Amino acid sequence: MSQKIEPRTLSGFMELLPEEQILFEQMKQTIESTYQKFGFLPLDTPIIELSQVLLAKAGGETEKQIYRFERGDTDLSLRFDLTVPLAKYVAKNYGNLSFPFRRYQIGKVYRGERTQKGRFREFYQCDIDIIGDETLGIVNDAELPSVIYNVFKNLGFEDFTIRINNRKILNGLFESIDEKEKSVEILRIIDKIEKIGKEAVIEELEKLEVNRDSIQKIIEFMEIDGDSDEKIEKLENLPISSETFKLGVQELKEVVKYIRAFGIPEKNFNVDLTIARGLDYYTGTVYETFLNDYRELGSVCSGGRYENLAEYYTDKKLPGVGISIGLTRLFYKLNELNLIKAEQKSISKVLVIPMTENMEFAIDIANKFRKIGINTEVYLNNKKLKAKMKYADKLQIPYVIVVGDDEIETGIVKVKNMNTGEERELDVKSDFQTFKFE
Amino acid sequence: MSQKIEPRTLSGFMELLPEEQILFEQMKQTIESTYQKFGFLPLDTPIIELSQVLLAKAGGETEKQIYRFERGDTDLSLRFDLTVPLAKYVAKNYGNLSFPFRRYQIGKVYRGERTQKGRFREFYQCDIDIIGDETLGIVNDAELPSVIYNVFKNLGFEDFTIRINNRKILNGLFESIDEKEKSVEILRIIDKIEKIGKEAVIEELEKLEVNRDSIQKIIEFMEIDGDSDEKIEKLENLPISSETFKLGVQELKEVVKYIRAFGIPEKNFNVDLTIARGLDYYTGTVYETFLNDYRELGSVCSGGRYENLAEYYTDKKLPGVGISIGLTRLFYKLNELNLIKAEQKSISKVLVIPMTENMEFAIDIANKFRKIGINTEVYLNNKKLKAKMKYADKLQIPYVIVVGDDEIETGIVKVKNMNTGEERELDVKSDFQTFKFE
Repeated sequence: MSQKIEPRTLSGFMELLPEEQILFEQMKQTIESTYQKFGFLPLDTPIIELSQVLLAKAGGETEKQIYRFERGDTDLSLRFDLTVPLAKYVAKNYGNLSFPFRRYQIGKVYRGERTQKGRFREFYQCDIDIIGDETLGIVNDAELPSVIYNVFKNLGFEDFTIRINNRKILNGLFESIDEKEKSVEILRIIDKIEKIGKEAVIEELEKLEVNRDSIQKIIEFMEIDGDSDEKIEKLENLPISSETFKLGVQELKEVVKYIRAFGIPEKNFNVDLTIARGLDYYTGTVYETFLNDYRELGSVCSGGRYENLAEYYTDKKLPGVGISIGLTRLFYKLNELNLIKAEQKSISKVLVIPMTENMEFAIDIANKFRKIGINTEVYLNNKKLKAKMKYADKLQIPYVIVVGDDEIETGIVKVKNMNTGEERELDVKSDFQTFKFE
Repeated sequence: MSQKIEPRTLSGFMELLPEEQILFEQMKQTIESTYQKFGFLPLDTPIIELSQVLLAKAGGETEKQIYRFERGDTDLSLRFDLTVPLAKYVAKNYGNLSFPFRRYQIGKVYRGERTQKGRFREFYQCDIDIIGDETLGIVNDAELPSVIYNVFKNLGFEDFTIRINNRKILNGLFESIDEKEKSVEILRIIDKIEKIGKEAVIEELEKLEVNRDSIQKIIEFMEIDGDSDEKIEKLENLPISSETFKLGVQELKEVVKYIRAFGIPEKNFNVDLTIARGLDYYTGTVYETFLNDYRELGSVCSGGRYENLAEYYTDKKLPGVGISIGLTRLFYKLNELNLIKAEQKSISKVLVIPMTENMEFAIDIANKFRKIGINTEVYLNNKKLKAKMKYADKLQIPYVIVVGDDEIETGIVKVKNMNTGEERELDVKSDFQTFKFE
């Protein structure tokens, strides 16, 4: 074997070193256990689907990004999100599910975007959705922010804001200014106000041939300020007669009320009437989440209410509300900003290092630690003590036990805390239950 | 929307109902936590790799099964196992890893096999490998059976056997009968003795033009019986002078000694000289694992020692030892045989059912349970009590709390055990810490 192939990983595909991977797994685990705390059921759908099924709705940009290929004469695609597979799943298994169907799914999705720093072609989405059969109560819309709040709290964040709006309010506004036809385009423009500013929004609306009066109304509406309650009050007092608008305000008020019931502090949420979410399938509540000190990350968790999850597959009406965290990008950005740090470089809490040829005594110690639930490894290679200690050092395993002839004879070993240097004696014949590391 | 697309899932791709998925996740979690107990580090590599990298070694059957496609002018493939990506990873990150490098990876792999019942094109492999830099002590070969033992114990099995052999013994035998050239073919034939029987093995060896004397020796060797120690003793007494053979016997003896040190009971392992593992890259210890009451499942966990993990990518010599569990197939078979059963159909332990329009009180109860770590959900839809109880019933949520006007007034709710019907009172103003479900 002299001709070697360069061991490359595709660009746009994240592959981490072990200590980063440990951190990534911890974040993933935190998200998963928070989702479970709210009783969401796990789901795992295939990464490959029939193109016909997966692309039932897709078009435009999405379609261009799909990893699509033929195998035999079957047209296949890799999933590009977890929502379309959910729609397929619920339509397919309708009779076997209990509604509201509350599921989480954490898995990789694929989008062949142009590669650039911080953009990934393979990335994890962590989704939850609540799907109703025919109807789904508005209080569900308040539960999801509560899940978001708990996720980011559990990830160690304090200063983040979940911004909430309702698409019916915006749609109602357009109805009232008679620009319903252009509402999707107008929403797309409004959605950019944070990025491009008020003047640019006005310019784009003019390009869209929205009349000056209407633009004025839109901007006035968007400049409604105050805290969440004040905004809602101002909305209620606006002279807009559209029923859609009124329903939206009412829903938003209900959501805010229940968000408080779910225990989210005032500083962690607010009503933001500029949020529209670019996607055109949200029909009610919409969410975005920002880490306030790192606004440049964009929204780290978004979602909303949709009228009908699976209309491409079934006649059943399945309204739902859902959120998604793009974990791969979030991890990449937090890591880049040094906002997260591996507390450990190893999975093991204890490393047992045998210094004698016979390793049975050392193995016995490891067996006993594992029995009481402590992750433990034995250095099983025949190396000098220096090389063995270097391994413990590099992996930063917190506790090390060196086993030589003396230890085997006395049956007493020293458990060394590698941070403090402190050593504690441990009787190997004991059951380890009472041993205290700290 | 009248034209509907049938919500199909590709055949050969497992997609489970929630209660099965809960069970699957439990098995996966058990395997993962057992791997962690031994200090293995997590790894997550891309599912898509450059074909040139992934297929550096592959050929024959494997290559035909690959999901391979072009995107732009890049030739891509989906991984078909977790070993090749590991080889790439270790070669690529050699300077940043600590050796022995102990990693686990649990992920989906893809093989376009002919679809048939119980065969999957997308399936989970759960791998661990220990990679040495230049050398890797033989005691590592005894640790892996110990991991296997703990995995299957933790999965709830008692009656399983890890069968162990050493390829050097077989190779040495062929050296001594001067059939070294044919050893790969002979090993393939021997490997089938369980399936096809002794006579068929003899026939196939004859077809291979192995002479009668040698066939006789092979069969005699394969008929060595007794317990593990007796077999090793008989091997030591065989008049075979090959150094490879002697080294193999010595290694096997060492592995058996340390397997005992790792605490594996005698009934859960034995030396089986017929095991060769069809693959030609194993060079020392090899393993197979059988559930004794369900031999028809074949080996549920296999692996072994290889001389050089990453020779296609690097000049570094990287010997390793590893095992793999094909979780998707294992789950499918166990489920089919009714050997595993969902103990729960829900993730929630408690369901709170509000019967009043205002759900704040019910939500407050759920908040408090979650705070003490109890997975809890609230039925947030506006339905009749009957529909709400049906939901609890179908999902078999163990504890249900119905909240009406009385409960809100008194601040005392009843926590109903849905299995026994027993009810316990809970003061909602308390901190729930002292509440006992049982």
